[in-house]
Amino acid sequence: MTAAADEDRLARATLTCLAEPGDVVLGALLRTCDPARIVAALTEGRTPSGAGRVAGLDGALRRWGARLGDAPTATMLDTWHRDGIRLLCPADPGWPGQLDALGDARPWGLWVRGSADLRYACLRSVSIVGTRAATSYGMHVCLEMSAALAQRGWAVVSGGAFGIDASAHRGALTAEGVTVAVLASGVDEPYPLGHHGLFEAIAAHGVLLSEWPPGRRPTRPGFLVRNRVITALSRGTVVVEAALRSGALNTARHARDQCRPLMAVPGPVTSLASEGCHEIIREWGAVCVTGARDVLEHLAFPGDEPVAARARGPVLPRDELDPISRRVLEAVPARAGRGPARIAVSAGVDFDTVMRCLGGLAAGGFVERCDRGWRLRKQA
Amino acid sequence: MTAAADEDRLARATLTCLAEPGDVVLGALLRTCDPARIVAALTEGRTPSGAGRVAGLDGALRRWGARLGDAPTATMLDTWHRDGIRLLCPADPGWPGQLDALGDARPWGLWVRGSADLRYACLRSVSIVGTRAATSYGMHVCLEMSAALAQRGWAVVSGGAFGIDASAHRGALTAEGVTVAVLASGVDEPYPLGHHGLFEAIAAHGVLLSEWPPGRRPTRPGFLVRNRVITALSRGTVVVEAALRSGALNTARHARDQCRPLMAVPGPVTSLASEGCHEIIREWGAVCVTGARDVLEHLAFPGDEPVAARARGPVLPRDELDPISRRVLEAVPARAGRGPARIAVSAGVDFDTVMRCLGGLAAGGFVERCDRGWRLRKQA
Repeated sequence: MTAAADEDRLARATLTCLAEPGDVVLGALLRTCDPARIVAALTEGRTPSGAGRVAGLDGALRRWGARLGDAPTATMLDTWHRDGIRLLCPADPGWPGQLDALGDARPWGLWVRGSADLRYACLRSVSIVGTRAATSYGMHVCLEMSAALAQRGWAVVSGGAFGIDASAHRGALTAEGVTVAVLASGVDEPYPLGHHGLFEAIAAHGVLLSEWPPGRRPTRPGFLVRNRVITALSRGTVVVEAALRSGALNTARHARDQCRPLMAVPGPVTSLASEGCHEIIREWGAVCVTGARDVLEHLAFPGDEPVAARARGPVLPRDELDPISRRVLEAVPARAGRGPARIAVSAGVDFDTVMRCLGGLAAGGFVERCDRGWRLRKQA
Repeated sequence: MTAAADEDRLARATLTCLAEPGDVVLGALLRTCDPARIVAALTEGRTPSGAGRVAGLDGALRRWGARLGDAPTATMLDTWHRDGIRLLCPADPGWPGQLDALGDARPWGLWVRGSADLRYACLRSVSIVGTRAATSYGMHVCLEMSAALAQRGWAVVSGGAFGIDASAHRGALTAEGVTVAVLASGVDEPYPLGHHGLFEAIAAHGVLLSEWPPGRRPTRPGFLVRNRVITALSRGTVVVEAALRSGALNTARHARDQCRPLMAVPGPVTSLASEGCHEIIREWGAVCVTGARDVLEHLAFPGDEPVAARARGPVLPRDELDPISRRVLEAVPARAGRGPARIAVSAGVDFDTVMRCLGGLAAGGFVERCDRGWRLRKQA
């Protein structure tokens, strides 16, 4: 690693200690000033050279400068590194480039702990989020979905919280897949403490990451800021259960704002825990997904192995049609359209019978009229 | 009633006995020939004068003619009339004009029994349909929805079947509203027989109707043909529960083909009885509705009393914000946008504080940046 890269990393580590993640003033400043120059200026109590006109800069500099005592040293970085914690920087090969879409709100660095390759995992990842106050229904559906996605090689991103988040991580781990927990606390003491075992398992088979430095406790606004990273990291976001005021809807909003595919799992309309899901399906156009198959259909890359065909067809199964109607149906072409006289000849029945059968077949959704006669109706 | 109207009614009554509802040959013929002329020609074994080039006409005439023995007499019409059964014809003032949208598949008459004014009722009506194999969840949701719609003066249209249909009718009756059962059997012996009590209640407070003449037993294709009338009669259709091959999806398809609003109630993804609902929400764009309020929002006429406001808002309720953030939030204008310096003055806090708070408020979905500074974020 070059000295310049080391310097950049230490400066970015320092910035994660001085500024709150998502601070748009720092984001704007980083457009024209590199981190090392900003930290140097802060240390010397002056405005960094090259800072353009950034609104609120003076106050921000004072705010950040006041926290300089929290700045980590190179030795601390080494210690953390020995504990398996390192700061991933935008110039690193392992940086997940999709975060760059966050613009000024892009993290200045990600503290990571874990065995998986974050960048590679997130190329094919789904975030699955939901309420902490999950029902057994939601936990069950989430676990199944997450396991099935992991089994097909998709990484599952979530927030490490109680309830749906935990089921999402657990489902992926059950399937021996990769899972990524995006935290609002330091990766050395992931919150909530009750998930200690889960977090250790995630670190062993996936990645724990945070914009906040080691040792930092989470704050309530921090969770909301964190959510933008969950959605930006993954190709799409699924909300499994969310009441109308659940934090999961904040995550959903980030997905929508970032123009990432947004999905939601429906549930009983009598369950408060599904109200938010139904709301975003109805009002935001979130796609109604009932399991991993639907998620994959919505997110699959061109060239992916096709998802197992969905059972579809007309209401009345063909084999419940009377034999004459079935013969007529078999004589109807798929695309071009054919007149009833020719259908009669093909089916080996008289013209009247064809006319009688076509009406019933049309009502049943099997066939439709077209310019050139009748054709099979494309099944929706 | 004029003699011509009587003649027309008897001829149409005859046609309901000779041809299957939805017979497109008769539909096409009726464009140019009036019913009395068709029946007269059939009696005399000739092609009606004025019949254009209608495909399949000769065979159809033979088919219909062979059934002339089933034709009712004027005396039979009188007898039925005394039993409260009459044939509603397109020229009658009580004819529901929205059926005309069916084109050649428009019923040639509707056999009706009941106390309510069909035309008036259907002006503000919702069809609620679903599987016979309903769950207690579906029956409960359906009953509540139907009762709430009836309470607000909406008629509930359904098919009189076991399961969801029955709950739809019962909900409306419970609320002392109007309900319409569209049958695939004669209105004198509505099918299924097990719903005898329900059908009597519907006749007493609503309408039983059928395209088939009194005495006719239902056939399986008949149900599919019947479904188009359910959707054409009502302003919108709600599917409450439907498996992937439920007949209710055939009804849904008619609603879609007729460009009528189509809605579906979600349910547990673990329930087969909700699979069809989720499918049409995802694939056909059916609106996800969780109760009468959603249905009314989707169908309300301009000028209707607004539906009670939906509980909406940012994730974190305002009253859980810290006091400083709340003051800053109150200083952010709704539309025009305001710079942070002016917000600081209004809120009575310093500029740095404003900059710090705005970031958190933005992440929480309360505020957003605009050309002229910051403004409140419109709640979805």
